[in-house]
Amino acid sequence: MEVTRLNFGEIIPELENDITSSHFLAIDGEFTGLHTGQDFNAFDTPQQYYAKLRSGGMDFLLVQLGLCTFRYNKDTGQFTHKAYNFYVFPRPFSRSAPDPRFLCQSSSLDFLVSQGFDFNKLFKEGIPYLTEAEEKKLREQLEEKQKARANSSSSKNEDSSASIPIPEEHTELIEDVCVRINDFLSNDEQDELILDGYNGFVRKLIYQTVGERFDSRSMHVETRAIDNHNRALVVTRALSDEDRKKKEEERQEQEKKELDTAVGVSSVIRMISQSGKLIIGHNMLLDICHILHQFCTPLPESYSEFKELVTFMFPRILDTKYMSCMDPFKDQISSTVLGHLHKTLSGEPFELVNVAPAVEGRGYASAEEKAHEAGYDAYLTGVCFLTLANYLGSLEEPAKKPVLPNSPLLRPYINRLHLMRVQDVTFIDLTGEDAEPPRDHVFHVTFPKEWKTYDLTQLFSPFGSVYVSWLTEASAYVGLHRRDQAQLVLNTLTQSDTYSVERYTEHVKRIKQTQRQ
Amino acid sequence: MEVTRLNFGEIIPELENDITSSHFLAIDGEFTGLHTGQDFNAFDTPQQYYAKLRSGGMDFLLVQLGLCTFRYNKDTGQFTHKAYNFYVFPRPFSRSAPDPRFLCQSSSLDFLVSQGFDFNKLFKEGIPYLTEAEEKKLREQLEEKQKARANSSSSKNEDSSASIPIPEEHTELIEDVCVRINDFLSNDEQDELILDGYNGFVRKLIYQTVGERFDSRSMHVETRAIDNHNRALVVTRALSDEDRKKKEEERQEQEKKELDTAVGVSSVIRMISQSGKLIIGHNMLLDICHILHQFCTPLPESYSEFKELVTFMFPRILDTKYMSCMDPFKDQISSTVLGHLHKTLSGEPFELVNVAPAVEGRGYASAEEKAHEAGYDAYLTGVCFLTLANYLGSLEEPAKKPVLPNSPLLRPYINRLHLMRVQDVTFIDLTGEDAEPPRDHVFHVTFPKEWKTYDLTQLFSPFGSVYVSWLTEASAYVGLHRRDQAQLVLNTLTQSDTYSVERYTEHVKRIKQTQRQ
Ligand SMILES: Nc1nc2c(ncn2[C@@H]2O[C@H](COP(=O)(O)OP(=O)(O)O)[C@@H](O)[C@H]2O)c(=O)[nH]1
Ligand SMILES: Nc1nc2c(ncn2[C@@H]2O[C@H](COP(=O)(O)OP(=O)(O)O)[C@@H](O)[C@H]2O)c(=O)[nH]1
Repeated sequence: MEVTRLNFGEIIPELENDITSSHFLAIDGEFTGLHTGQDFNAFDTPQQYYAKLRSGGMDFLLVQLGLCTFRYNKDTGQFTHKAYNFYVFPRPFSRSAPDPRFLCQSSSLDFLVSQGFDFNKLFKEGIPYLTEAEEKKLREQLEEKQKARANSSSSKNEDSSASIPIPEEHTELIEDVCVRINDFLSNDEQDELILDGYNGFVRKLIYQTVGERFDSRSMHVETRAIDNHNRALVVTRALSDEDRKKKEEERQEQEKKELDTAVGVSSVIRMISQSGKLIIGHNMLLDICHILHQFCTPLPESYSEFKELVTFMFPRILDTKYMSCMDPFKDQISSTVLGHLHKTLSGEPFELVNVAPAVEGRGYASAEEKAHEAGYDAYLTGVCFLTLANYLGSLEEPAKKPVLPNSPLLRPYINRLHLMRVQDVTFIDLTGEDAEPPRDHVFHVTFPKEWKTYDLTQLFSPFGSVYVSWLTEASAYVGLHRRDQAQLVLNTLTQSDTYSVERYTEHVKRIKQTQRQ
Repeated sequence: MEVTRLNFGEIIPELENDITSSHFLAIDGEFTGLHTGQDFNAFDTPQQYYAKLRSGGMDFLLVQLGLCTFRYNKDTGQFTHKAYNFYVFPRPFSRSAPDPRFLCQSSSLDFLVSQGFDFNKLFKEGIPYLTEAEEKKLREQLEEKQKARANSSSSKNEDSSASIPIPEEHTELIEDVCVRINDFLSNDEQDELILDGYNGFVRKLIYQTVGERFDSRSMHVETRAIDNHNRALVVTRALSDEDRKKKEEERQEQEKKELDTAVGVSSVIRMISQSGKLIIGHNMLLDICHILHQFCTPLPESYSEFKELVTFMFPRILDTKYMSCMDPFKDQISSTVLGHLHKTLSGEPFELVNVAPAVEGRGYASAEEKAHEAGYDAYLTGVCFLTLANYLGSLEEPAKKPVLPNSPLLRPYINRLHLMRVQDVTFIDLTGEDAEPPRDHVFHVTFPKEWKTYDLTQLFSPFGSVYVSWLTEASAYVGLHRRDQAQLVLNTLTQSDTYSVERYTEHVKRIKQTQRQ
């Protein structure tokens, strides 16, 4: 189901119920871009990887959140699902609301639009959001504003600053405005008088003159935004005390409602967090980072605080990309791209789990091709998860089916996020120390910037095949395939004016020392 | 007329002719945002203003370029116009093309979409562009690539690096692929064999094995992008020398065409520049900056180089916002917002010039309300310009009409760009030194961050009214309305633990010294 700000309020009770009664949830996000160009390196440590992700990726926007709830029915022994596609856009709801700037990557927008993503709908009907800190600040500001209004309601229209002499070229205009206000006040035909077409300075002069010449008990002036960009002055007749009070109450009610609405998607994330359900995603590190950063709180600089934050917000996570890269799956699955994975799981030796929509029109059928709609990808991820889980069960003696989200068989896969493009550390361990595989066979090499990969493989050819991971145009990490050749490299390749070769561990140590100085 | 990449190629000859035969051009741009939040200050110097514009505004994208050509017909004594709306989007056209990242401001997107701007069309059909440096680099790269292809066409498929041993879990898959290739080569049923669903590592293994086992004279493997994000290997039968040559020629032709197309909107800007025509805009500093930065060359850091760049590219510019703020117009025009200006110029003492479309369907009628479509705003700007110009002529003895773009009456307004929000310098003088009005009456004030404007006006109340221009939450520039009070301020307000007051000129001098150290 598509969720925009037009139906968001309505669906909340249903959504809340779906989340609470579900057995697990699957999520997926669509973004305006992936990275600012700073490339990941095959020998990044998980900590370095996180630092790059945080500094280079979080300025993009999550514009669609897919959420799929999965529920197990004991009687039928079947799962059903319900899918939600939230359009997400931080349209400022008032002048004091945040007006976020965000990055876009051309190729990502091109990709989304080629998949049928509707950007006009996004910008028109996207649901807003606020981080917790933003919400808190806005609530405080609103309270202050309301208090200030209560205190000033008795004081005069007049600006308390000393008055500006009216420049000659504006006197006629100002006199003219006063005549129009007098006319307006002396008959009851109109409810308000709109004074449009004056710049900020002229408006200031009008405020000042009105304060001097008119009684604030009989009339009121305020600035109002019209046609989005221009501002006009609006003159209204003063109200009786009772009417004023009633109007003020209505206004406060309205302001509170506006702010509640502005919390938008963030309230969905809070629901998910509070439910404590198992959350499934495919290659979900980026999704998790964006969800926390955009809807909850800016990502912390510290990698260990990041891990704590994730497990605090989402205590049980499972990444199907990680799962399908591990035993007993890795030898049977030649590509873990979501579409490919789904195809592989549709054949032997797997038994694809059929998950019907809980309600007609609120879900997908596997056969449908809506790839890259976030809700569909979330649905597909859930189906893959159930299929992988059941396969684990089928290997047991006696075979277990179905394998439910709380099964101990899943334990090895919980709270581990797949790491893309890193050579030898395949996941982030959210609740433990990350692996630190030995890198004695890896070297930091510097060379003339004219060199290509070919020159590096030539240089190392006496020691067998190598894996080259570029750092800059004049440096790279080079990994030996034959680890036993490492000492030989150090004995052979150290003396040269053209290039330099240093052990990975030495290089990292030296970098750390330089940074400390 | 709407111009997208679907009709861009077609309209170029017509556009070229329209520009060459025009008497002047009007332009306008729509952007994904305005500024990153760093605010302009009422006492910025033009140089400071430019520095802020450059660092805080150029990461946004110009997404629509409005161009309106105006032509004077001597026989009828009338102007006609033709309007173009270019949708602009840097969709990468190949893997080596730039994939720009750009900023968006939520409120700006909200504004554009509320005006009916079609973002789906933008991202799908927007016309690309290249700066001169980007184009040059891509042409060189293409040449190199083509040369490399020519040299390698005779060599083997095999990768020259030492081979990677095939991991056990992949041997079955690789053998299977070899069987499929053999089958494909041994009968003529298919033109190509697509090997889809393998990750980068497996693809590398396949390349390597193919190189070892198959004769490159009989078959060819290449990587091709499918469904936008995934890559597949494509196997084809080798061609005869003649066929290969023909195919290579076609490919080179295609690559050159692709690159020419990629220059897109930049070629329009070059046409405009080369035409040397008078270019009109309304509040056009931002438009000029974006046009140069996006389509020609990144804005220079130096302010004087910026001025040189503008006059080099566009030797004659006229800003109708600047013009209407100056004598003899300023007393008669209370708001210079484009819509307001047009309305004011529609009444006495002005005589709005009627400019019909040169061709039915290629322009606007004044009555139409298409505000904030770039082409319409350009059209309106041109109409306002002609009306202002004719008004100048009507003041002459004897009255002159029409006033054409080369009239000496326009000289005082040429090459001066309106400066928004600066108190006392109203324009950038592109061909001279900017004004440096005395600021003896302005003070730099620091104070506790709890202070509001009210506290500042209170502090200065003995010296009359003041203009407060905030710098940070604890500092501001304060300008006296009564300049003669400046010395009194210095005598009275210098001794305090709570605040400090310093002459503007002293403050600026001190800042410069600190920066130099
Ligand atoms: N002398 C003087 N100029 C002012 C004052 N307030 C605003 N202005 C000028 O009026 C113009 C528009 O004001 P602004 O508040 O930015 O309104 P905007 O039209 O909504 O952007 C600017 O050029 C300001 O410098 C004031 O108190 N004194
Ligand atoms: N051992 C080894 N791994 C490689 C080699 N080339 C690529 N990989 C791994 O294969 C995976 C995908 O490679 P990549 O070139 O990024 O292809 P992508 O699937 O298009 O992103 C990565 O995890 C790489 O670490 C290689 O030469 N040796």
